[in-house]
Amino acid sequence: MYGTIRVELSSERKAKPSVDTGLAFGKYFTDHMFMMNYSEGSGWHDPRIVPYAPITLDPSAMVFHYGQAIFEGLKAYRSPDKSSVYLFRPDKNAARLNQSCERLSMPSIDEAFFVEALQSLVRIDADWIPESEGTSLYIRPFIISTEAGLGVRPSSEYLFAVIMSPVGSYYEEGIHPVAIHVETHYTRAAVGGMGYAKAAGNYAGSLKAQMLAKEYNCSQVLWLDAAEKKYLEEVGSMNVFFKLGGEIVTPKLNGSILDGVTRNSVMQLLASWGMPVTERRISMDEIAAAFANGTLEEAFGTGTAAVISPIGSLHWNDQTMSINVGQTGPLTERLYNTLTGIQNGKIEDPFGWNVRC
Amino acid sequence: MYGTIRVELSSERKAKPSVDTGLAFGKYFTDHMFMMNYSEGSGWHDPRIVPYAPITLDPSAMVFHYGQAIFEGLKAYRSPDKSSVYLFRPDKNAARLNQSCERLSMPSIDEAFFVEALQSLVRIDADWIPESEGTSLYIRPFIISTEAGLGVRPSSEYLFAVIMSPVGSYYEEGIHPVAIHVETHYTRAAVGGMGYAKAAGNYAGSLKAQMLAKEYNCSQVLWLDAAEKKYLEEVGSMNVFFKLGGEIVTPKLNGSILDGVTRNSVMQLLASWGMPVTERRISMDEIAAAFANGTLEEAFGTGTAAVISPIGSLHWNDQTMSINVGQTGPLTERLYNTLTGIQNGKIEDPFGWNVRC
Repeated sequence: MYGTIRVELSSERKAKPSVDTGLAFGKYFTDHMFMMNYSEGSGWHDPRIVPYAPITLDPSAMVFHYGQAIFEGLKAYRSPDKSSVYLFRPDKNAARLNQSCERLSMPSIDEAFFVEALQSLVRIDADWIPESEGTSLYIRPFIISTEAGLGVRPSSEYLFAVIMSPVGSYYEEGIHPVAIHVETHYTRAAVGGMGYAKAAGNYAGSLKAQMLAKEYNCSQVLWLDAAEKKYLEEVGSMNVFFKLGGEIVTPKLNGSILDGVTRNSVMQLLASWGMPVTERRISMDEIAAAFANGTLEEAFGTGTAAVISPIGSLHWNDQTMSINVGQTGPLTERLYNTLTGIQNGKIEDPFGWNVRC
Repeated sequence: MYGTIRVELSSERKAKPSVDTGLAFGKYFTDHMFMMNYSEGSGWHDPRIVPYAPITLDPSAMVFHYGQAIFEGLKAYRSPDKSSVYLFRPDKNAARLNQSCERLSMPSIDEAFFVEALQSLVRIDADWIPESEGTSLYIRPFIISTEAGLGVRPSSEYLFAVIMSPVGSYYEEGIHPVAIHVETHYTRAAVGGMGYAKAAGNYAGSLKAQMLAKEYNCSQVLWLDAAEKKYLEEVGSMNVFFKLGGEIVTPKLNGSILDGVTRNSVMQLLASWGMPVTERRISMDEIAAAFANGTLEEAFGTGTAAVISPIGSLHWNDQTMSINVGQTGPLTERLYNTLTGIQNGKIEDPFGWNVRC
């Protein structure tokens, strides 16, 4: 598929940053990157692992003008005995990458090859995977349109690249709840739009609301549906779950919500514990009513970066709803410990989620 | 403002393409480009006109991942006696660029300086402005985020660039009506989103529907509102106007529609003719009813590329509505002739729209 991956090793190796001193997310990159080009007629070709280096594009490259740009995010972890390296469910990222491609009229990539490319790159830069508790190597595959030209149409040329960055523990001082602002004006994505795709454009439009949330001392935004600003969608760059009077709920995938890998893993894990998750529409009115009658038990976000992020409070219009007296709930904590335990190999992986490099 | 524009002339001059043989839109670029950088603390700095050359960015440059990318489009025209060069309403593009900046959390640019930068660049590459009937020099200002790093937040570094491309007549064989597909599934933008911004991400999400329209032998898509798929928004990359039983209407700017410069010019022109345009909500039901009772008189799109694009038919669900027996209507033709006449200097410009370079 696409030919043998050519390897050109870097003659210089960069100094590795310390992960123990609050490493900024996605600021340091490993010595190598994976690249592969697409052109109409030739398809994907010239897969290669080369020294990490700048990308050079014509000023009229379509990515700068018409935004065909999608990405994925996943992590590589070291086993506790340091002998092995695992990727967490890379097949899910491969499948979602292709869903994004389809929505943005970009060419798909063979899913087995995608995983192989990641494995090859991680093996070559394996000494970049940090070893401390809670650390990992963040992997960022992305595809951009590269054809030079200003006609509004799908590009005939693309670049698929994978870069990697060592990341410290998301919670430097242990897991702790965050305050969330419920956004009632700005929209992230609408039904029929590209909200389910991990598209660069979805993030560009979300930054303004993220900045405004800080004015309410909130670290993230909870997005509502575009049509009625009534139903919950997702939190910042995470999916969201609630425990309401014993029922565990999460917004149903409706085309405007990202189909998160951690979301899916949490649902499988809870089902295996005999606690099935209901995927359905959830209104802010329902959340507020549960808060009022004392059944808003727990809330948390799920995503690759933080894995599980407990929600301590929701700020909605003029109301602030504290959840579980602002503390991490027992179910949230159990999910965090189990999922990170499976990821770093401390807990058995009954689902076969970890893929060895 | 931002310092003097430094000029570094190209030692080589490219061969100019013939504009008379169906020049592809935005495929050939002039010898020079304008560039200016922004960084937190320094603001916009180092404005310069340099030889047209590739842009080099780190693979983690934010534009590739979080899509902060906006652009503008306008044209430079030669006067009939070839003695002068004019830009058409560049102040409107400057203002809209800053609206886009604001929505995507990007730094604004002084509007007078923006116009000055365009004028300076056009003067240097003035020999690239084609002289034949209907031709012009298309100008593409754009801003992209350039900071290296994967944290989801507004970039701290940006590049503002202007590139230029000679374009042939949009209608090689004279103005002719196009067939439009009314899109009932896919969404371009929602209220609260970034539809009013000329953002790269808006185009990325629109390509799929554009491709599907071709299956109905339609060249463009008419977008409906995200919430109800009932009200008209815009056509492909144009605004849209209808003449319904004597009333001229266009969808009201509601936050999800682009505030087109040609749209605005058409409204001013019609007002000066004693034919005011009503900006309001227009439903497809109303259009279909007007078609049924014979009052759907004319329809046209407005945009920088085609200026005025007559609509010959609308394909909506299973219905095809022919407009003015598929011919360019008299009002549409008068608008096209007047507006292009003002642009290329053949007709007096009572509005002061043309700005000399």
